Amino acid sequence: MPAPRRYAIIGTGAIGGYYGARLQQSGCEVHYLLRSDYDYVCQHGLQVDSTAGDFILPQVNAYTVPADMPPVDVLIIALKTTQNHRLTKLLPPLQSETTVLTLQNGLGIESEITRQIPNRPILGGLCFICSNKVGPGHIHHLDYGQVLLGAYNASDQPAGITGMMSAIAQDFSQGQIPIDLTDDLFMARWRKLVWNIPYNGLSVVLNATTAELMADASTRALVETLMHEVVTTANAWGEHHSPGQKRTLPQTFISEMLATTDQMQPYRTSMKLDYDKGRPLEVEAILGNPVRAALEMGIAVPQMQMLYQQVRFLDSLTLERGSIAP
Amino acid sequence: MPAPRRYAIIGTGAIGGYYGARLQQSGCEVHYLLRSDYDYVCQHGLQVDSTAGDFILPQVNAYTVPADMPPVDVLIIALKTTQNHRLTKLLPPLQSETTVLTLQNGLGIESEITRQIPNRPILGGLCFICSNKVGPGHIHHLDYGQVLLGAYNASDQPAGITGMMSAIAQDFSQGQIPIDLTDDLFMARWRKLVWNIPYNGLSVVLNATTAELMADASTRALVETLMHEVVTTANAWGEHHSPGQKRTLPQTFISEMLATTDQMQPYRTSMKLDYDKGRPLEVEAILGNPVRAALEMGIAVPQMQMLYQQVRFLDSLTLERGSIAP
Repeated sequence: MPAPRRYAIIGTGAIGGYYGARLQQSGCEVHYLLRSDYDYVCQHGLQVDSTAGDFILPQVNAYTVPADMPPVDVLIIALKTTQNHRLTKLLPPLQSETTVLTLQNGLGIESEITRQIPNRPILGGLCFICSNKVGPGHIHHLDYGQVLLGAYNASDQPAGITGMMSAIAQDFSQGQIPIDLTDDLFMARWRKLVWNIPYNGLSVVLNATTAELMADASTRALVETLMHEVVTTANAWGEHHSPGQKRTLPQTFISEMLATTDQMQPYRTSMKLDYDKGRPLEVEAILGNPVRAALEMGIAVPQMQMLYQQVRFLDSLTLERGSIAP
Repeated sequence: MPAPRRYAIIGTGAIGGYYGARLQQSGCEVHYLLRSDYDYVCQHGLQVDSTAGDFILPQVNAYTVPADMPPVDVLIIALKTTQNHRLTKLLPPLQSETTVLTLQNGLGIESEITRQIPNRPILGGLCFICSNKVGPGHIHHLDYGQVLLGAYNASDQPAGITGMMSAIAQDFSQGQIPIDLTDDLFMARWRKLVWNIPYNGLSVVLNATTAELMADASTRALVETLMHEVVTTANAWGEHHSPGQKRTLPQTFISEMLATTDQMQPYRTSMKLDYDKGRPLEVEAILGNPVRAALEMGIAVPQMQMLYQQVRFLDSLTLERGSIAP
């Protein structure tokens, strides 16, 4: 039996803590970079309360200094994207074969990472999960959890399924994390933005749950026109980068998304949770980069743009008041 | 010397109470319809704290039952537009020559009134004033106060300056109310909407003062694009109703509005004041009717529409929670 794959988790919060704990539970070697939770986690380990069964990992490999961490096979970035500009200060020693896996939301993530960690394979994992960090080293996993994994390609083309993707998928599966692989990470990101842009943005601006936004005729219609703007932009983006290759989202995708959301529990989006806790919002990754992508292609997205401007305004007020360090 | 003109005030609040008291102070005969403030006002009269000098009117003609009021020359409607559907229940006995003067904001006001009070001359007065009702029969006049007066014309054409308009202007002037006359009430309403739509709407949605909206680059740009949508709609509306007559707002009007607002004190808009007090919002007069006017002419107003949908959503939540009766 080969040695287990080694993972490092940069950002041990609701996402990184959950997936790291799952991987460790299934036998992977996992190393966690922590900050304020470090002392507590050294003493008590990691605790996960999950709909799939609670568990505690009493012993974890915890660090506060990145240079103290060992080299790993897979470096998982699970920070908020608002922290990505300081990534170089948070990196463990990297080997040439270390794969970088970002579990972050939004657009333009991988190109930002590759500027700071050049010349290494970069994967993106889109997480469909409801989880919160409820205390030091204590994750509450509420629902879902699947990951959609794809490879980054600097020319924004479909990048195939790599061997490392398959290997990681095996580890995730063994860790009870449902995982799918995609050869087109970029269109997968756009697909997720069709949901994230209207619900994250409007939940913050209108102080509303997904259920409230769906129950009101006005906001339901607004969600739908926002989704149309995202789908139009996504399809133009696919055509722009790969002419004639039909990297498209079907318009029926919108009605599917609406129907899926109708069936969800009333849900505070991740951006709303951040906003309510006075944390910086992932406004550029979720809204700013998609809006700029549209405008650069000459696509009019007046409602996405307005939502971006509104969320930026609210985010800047939060920053002025002084945010809680994430 | 002829007998003073007789006025009835329907809606003795921040607007109706202020202008009624000014008219009475200058010698007009004024009759006030009151509701919850009736007993207090019968005992103590009306009190106006004004930047132009405080005053008290110890004796006022107060009523709770419209049928008890005498016939008047000018019936002033100063309710919130959200109350206009019950206007017929609030009317004093009308003579054939009674002029109706609405001091209300927004679009579509006069056509709603003429449905309930047919066959009488209708005037519209746009009030540029900061005033609040701070207690029973107690008005706080903070700033401004001028009125722009025009005549309603059922075919939405410029309606000239009528004799009654001049007579009312004389009364208002004598009451220290600066007043201008316009022959084009409709374009005057559109002109006011260029300010009202962005600032009223965004102040509610983003919980912000005018100064905060102007200080942030994102919302300042959003205000400006909303103003462009309103000006475009106004000009299309002018051309639609009076082809070739150049009933237009110049694009320079937008930079004037922005400059004027930059010089204002930080200001909670009337819609924001209503929202903060849990009152129904004038969402249809200020946003819904202008948006529908645009869509009927085939003009795309995506950001006005989005603002309308957002404010409607917030207004419906207020109504669900149970509003304070106005």
